[in-house]
Amino acid sequence: MKILGIDPGTRNCGYAIVEKNGNSIKLIEAGLIKIKTKILQEQIVEMTEGFDLIFGKHEIDEVSIEDMFFAFNPKTVIKLAQFRGAISLKILQKFGNFAEYTPLQVKKAVTGNGKATKEQVAFMVKRLLGVKKEIKPLDITDAIAIALTHAQRL
Amino acid sequence: MKILGIDPGTRNCGYAIVEKNGNSIKLIEAGLIKIKTKILQEQIVEMTEGFDLIFGKHEIDEVSIEDMFFAFNPKTVIKLAQFRGAISLKILQKFGNFAEYTPLQVKKAVTGNGKATKEQVAFMVKRLLGVKKEIKPLDITDAIAIALTHAQRL
Repeated sequence: MKILGIDPGTRNCGYAIVEKNGNSIKLIEAGLIKIKTKILQEQIVEMTEGFDLIFGKHEIDEVSIEDMFFAFNPKTVIKLAQFRGAISLKILQKFGNFAEYTPLQVKKAVTGNGKATKEQVAFMVKRLLGVKKEIKPLDITDAIAIALTHAQRL
Repeated sequence: MKILGIDPGTRNCGYAIVEKNGNSIKLIEAGLIKIKTKILQEQIVEMTEGFDLIFGKHEIDEVSIEDMFFAFNPKTVIKLAQFRGAISLKILQKFGNFAEYTPLQVKKAVTGNGKATKEQVAFMVKRLLGVKKEIKPLDITDAIAIALTHAQRL
């Protein structure tokens, strides 16, 4: 079973595809949908094009998206939330539903600690997948962690 | 030219179609996409079904959506913003772009006063369209105002 994890971001939208076979999990691909524009309508279009490329390459079975949390800058929140809503529709159109986990749930599932830093999450992601080389930036390790969280729950 | 105005709401999503011919504007249809569920993923699906019905009935040329403003309840903002983002993608998929106006711009365009109440907006909307009978609720008059604002700018 292939699981797509998504870390929504209006600049770098992290994604990761992991494959779960029984108890074994391996990383198939992870990367960023790089959003070049700052205009929300165009960001939404770039996001959909990015996912269309991913959908064209991989047969995905399940999708897991990080839930929104409240941030301090209202403008950022409103923009990110709209972007995440557009991702939600894009995923719903293709898959009919998706899983959602809060940052706390993801951190807890991957490191055992809901207050872990992103660096700790990155460390554990590599360890869980048996990956030796660096995976950067943290948007990618976050996306992998979101996919792994869903894989654990299944 | 037919303009669709949208007042995004996760319970009652107001919409209005006005037709502009030179300087004359008339109301074609206005109503609510009623969202029955409280679960965001399902709200997004209900919203898309509502718009598909509208798109099936009317040949729309331009779309105008009310912009988000910051509200005091962060949970409400995050939910509404995601819902509006999903509407944005739905509209972009069909029309490629849409106009956006803040509540202040809409109030100013329709009543001349950026601080007008929703009731004043409703009063002026009926007046501008030459409609005698009551139009309720305010989500519908707001959606008409959003369409009229765009009609004025064209």
